[in-house]
Amino acid sequence: MRERTVSIVAALWPIWLRKSFLTPSISRAFSDQILKSPALSSLDITDSWSSTRKKSDHSSTQESQNNWTAKILDGNAIAKGIRSRIASEVSRMNELTARVPGLAVILVGQRRDSETYVRNKISASEEVGINFKMTALPENCTEYEVCNALSRFNEDPSIHGIIVQLPLPQHLDEAKILNVISLEKDVDGFHPLNIGNLAMQGMEPLFIPCTPKGCIELLLQSGVEIMGKKAVVIGRSNIVGLPISLLLQRHHATVSVVHAFTKDPEKIARESDILVAAAGVPNLVRGSWLKPGAVVIDVGTNPVEDPRSEHGYRLVGDVCFEEATRLASAVTPVPGGVGPMTVAMLLCNTLESAKRAFKFTSNE
Amino acid sequence: MRERTVSIVAALWPIWLRKSFLTPSISRAFSDQILKSPALSSLDITDSWSSTRKKSDHSSTQESQNNWTAKILDGNAIAKGIRSRIASEVSRMNELTARVPGLAVILVGQRRDSETYVRNKISASEEVGINFKMTALPENCTEYEVCNALSRFNEDPSIHGIIVQLPLPQHLDEAKILNVISLEKDVDGFHPLNIGNLAMQGMEPLFIPCTPKGCIELLLQSGVEIMGKKAVVIGRSNIVGLPISLLLQRHHATVSVVHAFTKDPEKIARESDILVAAAGVPNLVRGSWLKPGAVVIDVGTNPVEDPRSEHGYRLVGDVCFEEATRLASAVTPVPGGVGPMTVAMLLCNTLESAKRAFKFTSNE
Repeated sequence: MRERTVSIVAALWPIWLRKSFLTPSISRAFSDQILKSPALSSLDITDSWSSTRKKSDHSSTQESQNNWTAKILDGNAIAKGIRSRIASEVSRMNELTARVPGLAVILVGQRRDSETYVRNKISASEEVGINFKMTALPENCTEYEVCNALSRFNEDPSIHGIIVQLPLPQHLDEAKILNVISLEKDVDGFHPLNIGNLAMQGMEPLFIPCTPKGCIELLLQSGVEIMGKKAVVIGRSNIVGLPISLLLQRHHATVSVVHAFTKDPEKIARESDILVAAAGVPNLVRGSWLKPGAVVIDVGTNPVEDPRSEHGYRLVGDVCFEEATRLASAVTPVPGGVGPMTVAMLLCNTLESAKRAFKFTSNE
Repeated sequence: MRERTVSIVAALWPIWLRKSFLTPSISRAFSDQILKSPALSSLDITDSWSSTRKKSDHSSTQESQNNWTAKILDGNAIAKGIRSRIASEVSRMNELTARVPGLAVILVGQRRDSETYVRNKISASEEVGINFKMTALPENCTEYEVCNALSRFNEDPSIHGIIVQLPLPQHLDEAKILNVISLEKDVDGFHPLNIGNLAMQGMEPLFIPCTPKGCIELLLQSGVEIMGKKAVVIGRSNIVGLPISLLLQRHHATVSVVHAFTKDPEKIARESDILVAAAGVPNLVRGSWLKPGAVVIDVGTNPVEDPRSEHGYRLVGDVCFEEATRLASAVTPVPGGVGPMTVAMLLCNTLESAKRAFKFTSNE
């Protein structure tokens, strides 16, 4: 027996704590929905081209004279509100069906950052009343052992979402392992069928990947309009850059994807109203990359050594935060921006999955 | 019995005809492969970002002083060479296995343009020795009838590729119908799983959609470098704009997708080294949209009335061809550019599918 399985039946939040998150204005605005993000297929509009198109006004040239003081997009606060609404929904589900959603995580090895992320997911699940199960496997485990653990969660009716904490050790085939996860429980949304349905107009993926979904929700809840805006996504990874570019396009942004082979990424970035940095390179995006007044979403979470920090390292983003605050109209901090939104979306996807499994609707 | 089924066992091209297409230089370059397009996963390179990036030189500014006379990218000629190599492979398959690939088409209604496209596919299949079966259904047929015809082709072991000629009449659910096609026979590559695998690095779709695949092959065979180039795709349809943007990105272009909600498409287009027009709007792309020296791929095939033409209409592209020839370094004509490449890629996908079914390799 090489693995240890930890099963945590999370406690529901006390009522007073849940209530305290819902200020009157928020509860009015979102009383009947957890997220602002609409169903993707509801966004589909036939592209109707006009041959006499207006050129965009060049107000940005005037804006470049100004110095902005960016609004900090507080992912912690927005995620807290979402978790509160999830907790409320889980509690109602429990009252009406005597069941709660279940989330399972496979953790391989002992990477410090992975352990931190999993700890955050456990504690967030506990808070909202989602059951949490974890299978921890040693660094040198085999592909068979990982797939075996996944299969057990696939068959477990108390589990509605399964995630494999990435990255996996090099000797394991990530694509092959992720492919074992049942489509109905792929709450990370990394299956190619989910990505295809995310890309195609008229289609609806079972799950939208958590980080991209969190970025869009952050924009929507902050009142940032996406339709018709120029957006640049820096980085094209399968789990962040690619799906966020597809999702922004479904929201009718004009999207450019910049990667390591792009000749002048700075110029493309500087022309964009919305910049999403997901390259995994600390401080790649300097002030000179930003259009004055742009909205900046920093997905980077890069550990850099810091002897003064409690754990010997601290997290920095892909964006030079200090410079961004002087040029952007809004920017996410690292940590405290996209990170908590990602966790909230994981809970949200797990709840959605359980609702599908229980045929439980919001109107019950 | 509301349908008529036409079965055509295509004749092989005579040997002398096939040989005449292979000039010595071409036969040396392509003796062991039909296409220049490599397997997508062979293109995957880890994105390695440098913090001291060179800015691109602005030679294009000088180029803008010049007047280009564009090279016409002759899709007919390139497609002819590809069809010749397919014919040769089909003939060898027939000699060694006594079997040939089979392609099935479902045609609903009597749209003149659809009938023309299907006629082209029949004649191209005949030429290369691919068996062709067609089921023609009346305009007012039911979804059940279309799905029934599809299911029969799914189960027919002599059929390796199935296509539904689009567009379908409005009362039929296109996505639902396309979903019935067996993944192994989806030679149009429109299934969301294929699109997902096309989008994701490290993955390989069973089939790449024919028009995007034809565009890339046209670029590669014309010696146009894609890696590191700025590309704009005008239009984002599921069957052309979206997959071509994904495919260009897999080839390491920096891709922007322009659609009807884009505020200044002309400006984005004018900054691009490669422009792919797939909006379905006659003459949308004027000379002012083009960067001098750009390569222009015109996917548009818009029928416009022309009493002088034999059929009462002629096809024009999305690009103002006259203006493009004076500004671009290379441009595809309409007709005779992307169209024949699309048909050649359909044959190519059908051959690949048959090779998979027969476990037939090129080295046999």
